[in-house]
Amino acid sequence: MRREFQTDLLEVGRLLVSMAEAGRVAMRNATTALLDADRAAGESVVARDAEIDALYRQAEEKVHQVLARQAPVAGDLRLVVTALHVAGDLERMGDLAEHVARTALRRHPAAVVPAELRPVVTQMAEIADRIAGKITTVLSAPDAIRAAELERDDDAMDDLHRQLFRILLGPDWSHGVESAVDAALLGRFYERYADHAVNAGKHIVYLVTGKQLT
Amino acid sequence: MRREFQTDLLEVGRLLVSMAEAGRVAMRNATTALLDADRAAGESVVARDAEIDALYRQAEEKVHQVLARQAPVAGDLRLVVTALHVAGDLERMGDLAEHVARTALRRHPAAVVPAELRPVVTQMAEIADRIAGKITTVLSAPDAIRAAELERDDDAMDDLHRQLFRILLGPDWSHGVESAVDAALLGRFYERYADHAVNAGKHIVYLVTGKQLT
Repeated sequence: MRREFQTDLLEVGRLLVSMAEAGRVAMRNATTALLDADRAAGESVVARDAEIDALYRQAEEKVHQVLARQAPVAGDLRLVVTALHVAGDLERMGDLAEHVARTALRRHPAAVVPAELRPVVTQMAEIADRIAGKITTVLSAPDAIRAAELERDDDAMDDLHRQLFRILLGPDWSHGVESAVDAALLGRFYERYADHAVNAGKHIVYLVTGKQLT
Repeated sequence: MRREFQTDLLEVGRLLVSMAEAGRVAMRNATTALLDADRAAGESVVARDAEIDALYRQAEEKVHQVLARQAPVAGDLRLVVTALHVAGDLERMGDLAEHVARTALRRHPAAVVPAELRPVVTQMAEIADRIAGKITTVLSAPDAIRAAELERDDDAMDDLHRQLFRILLGPDWSHGVESAVDAALLGRFYERYADHAVNAGKHIVYLVTGKQLT
């Protein structure tokens, strides 16, 4: 029973990592769509969100199976329920990548991000990708992820988010209202994506190692 | 056992309704802070978000207890897991109300919402309140909530959200970038609040009646 439970848990973990990988690819393509006005990249994100949603349903289904067949208690139960929260976070990451892609597509072929915002948006995308990447390596090397590291990434994202607002609300902004509104919403999408990724990362470490990151 | 399970489920339902009530009050006060530049109302939202978070932890704890003690299967298990999703939605609603309140506080005593946006923001707030209100009545009258009705509210919110963007991106906008960015983010907060409320509403009906709204 115990061994079976561990195997089930590992399978849940694998499904979650597949979701995280898909969510990472989605945000990468969304960023390409955004910064390179690449329509095909943007369309692939929109088209493939259904795959993330399907993985989400699989992960939920598997969790329900584990709960029903193994009736885990105490710490084991907590682990399984944690998996549901992670799945929810990862599903939202896919949605947020889709929001970025749709913003790029809506303005295509015009560039959404003006020159002076490119550095900050590029860095936000890099951090988003880095955090998502940590989730996908956790199965092979769970101890490689440290909570402090995730917090640092998250703090860096928050700094960039503030920097973005300083630029678009600053006296030198010359791109008008529409561009500022797009940039503000994009900033929020990346920031929320990173937030969900940090949550998911901490929880997956717990799921795989049984150790809580605090 | 069966009766005990029903009693537990009802208690989970009550905790969720308490969260929904607190989330409703929070958004009402946030709207007052926003439209009447009422600092005390805004501060109360920020101060009381911890109460919603505490209810969230209680609801999760209760769900864990039910899972561990009753080891429900099949439909019963699905009900219990549903409760976790609802709790997550309601917790986010509290956060979104806090975002609205913080936006109002940041600009205080200046008005955040220019005159031409007041009607649409007022309506968004009314719909948000109406949907949240439906969640809180579901325990006393579960059959009074219809999925079609929640969908209609949600569609109305989406229409208002689009209308808000048309105004702030329109040729007559004279309030500059900062005001437009605030309004765009506020629009998103109300829209997301309603989205979570609709999800929570449908799930709570399922939780209380066992009937799935589609």
